[in-house]
Amino acid sequence: MLANTSEMAASVAGLLNNVRIVLVNTTHTGNIGAAARAMKNMGLSRMTLVAPRQQPDAEAYARSSRADEILDQAEVVPDLETAIADCQLVIGTSARQRNLCWPLITPRQMADEVAQACLAQSDAQIALVFGREDRGLTNEELAQCHFHVNIPTDENFSSLNVASAVQVLVYELRVKWLELQDATLLDWQDEWDVDWADGAGVERFYHHLEQVLTDLDFYDPENPRNLMQRLRRLYQRARLDQTELNILRGILTATEKAAGLKSKR
Amino acid sequence: MLANTSEMAASVAGLLNNVRIVLVNTTHTGNIGAAARAMKNMGLSRMTLVAPRQQPDAEAYARSSRADEILDQAEVVPDLETAIADCQLVIGTSARQRNLCWPLITPRQMADEVAQACLAQSDAQIALVFGREDRGLTNEELAQCHFHVNIPTDENFSSLNVASAVQVLVYELRVKWLELQDATLLDWQDEWDVDWADGAGVERFYHHLEQVLTDLDFYDPENPRNLMQRLRRLYQRARLDQTELNILRGILTATEKAAGLKSKR
Repeated sequence: MLANTSEMAASVAGLLNNVRIVLVNTTHTGNIGAAARAMKNMGLSRMTLVAPRQQPDAEAYARSSRADEILDQAEVVPDLETAIADCQLVIGTSARQRNLCWPLITPRQMADEVAQACLAQSDAQIALVFGREDRGLTNEELAQCHFHVNIPTDENFSSLNVASAVQVLVYELRVKWLELQDATLLDWQDEWDVDWADGAGVERFYHHLEQVLTDLDFYDPENPRNLMQRLRRLYQRARLDQTELNILRGILTATEKAAGLKSKR
Repeated sequence: MLANTSEMAASVAGLLNNVRIVLVNTTHTGNIGAAARAMKNMGLSRMTLVAPRQQPDAEAYARSSRADEILDQAEVVPDLETAIADCQLVIGTSARQRNLCWPLITPRQMADEVAQACLAQSDAQIALVFGREDRGLTNEELAQCHFHVNIPTDENFSSLNVASAVQVLVYELRVKWLELQDATLLDWQDEWDVDWADGAGVERFYHHLEQVLTDLDFYDPENPRNLMQRLRRLYQRARLDQTELNILRGILTATEKAAGLKSKR
């Protein structure tokens, strides 16, 4: 249990800071660079390379697109055991079929497990482990994990690029991190740059619109055929802001003027 | 409204089949290939290239990792207007700040909008539009969209690789597609390869364990110190399957035999 809000804040921060990305036996340095970029985009920084075929090179730095410090500070270790020695929670990526079942979770469930671990212990050390490009993690490596996470894929084309797999999992971590700060849902209506129009102003617009359409002989109040309801439905669905309302009223006034409508009345 | 379950099934299929990925003015063919791979991994197939700097080349095919047919069948058009001419719903990727606000949604809300469009009209044509590597979509292009989608990123390092952006959005589409088939949550306990042990069998194990630990002088029933509760909590948390239960009982029996415990009683 958390004693106070500052502990809660520390735990939420931990969701990104305490997670390390562990890449096992990676062959292509470009993938290491792309994984570093994905990590930095989502706010993660700790990378561990288990016996990489090659150290990060020019290709890795090019693909990282200025996530240099993640590559510079990447820890290089000889085996997975060393990489996760101080970790309380280890989650390995895995295709679905294995000889021995293991607790298998989705990327979204993975983010839940990470969040629970951080909320329980704000300095929890957590590893997400990714296998070789050609054959993933070995059974021995998978047996060092608490959970296996499976990214859903088409069954006929299931081999994800390793940096893409990193991208999906760190994206889910960031979404969970934002959720814990109540910041996931973009409510664009709350953030609109103009005030929304009020009901009375919109009603005056509909009245004005009806008048102009009648004067234009486009609308016959004796035979309304749902025209005004349809126009209302359109503008109500869009929800007019004050500037838009002013523009529409301005168009009606300009129309009246150009067509000499007011003088006809 | 949907008339029957076969229409529902068609709509669910549409979620992946009716969505095209539109890449505008892409510079690096490797990104086109990586986007094709991400699409095929998630079960999408339709790619439209708006005035690519270069047609897909060897680098594109290499990065696509055998998603060749997506590249072979990619439609190449001169402008966004042509790419989306037959679309009912157009969603463009965008960084957050723009001069003019636009309905801005998260990747998960994007998947909801796509699902709603497909449920309303099973042959709805939907475009997800991705901009240039260096400067995204222009304001004119963004104004052709119904929604803008923003992938959450660290504010200090917000420029996602375009193929990574494709990966995140098509992943969200696949998760939504699985959700609509009630297949998102991996319930590993339901899919376990061995039957779970029943309560009576587990109780017999605890009884056996307590007996052996007592005989080993490891456990003193007169001074229990929570030992058996702690062991119960461990095994209950793990939830034993029948094979594991047999193994644990076997270990206890072997221990009794090796230590001559039964003869002591």
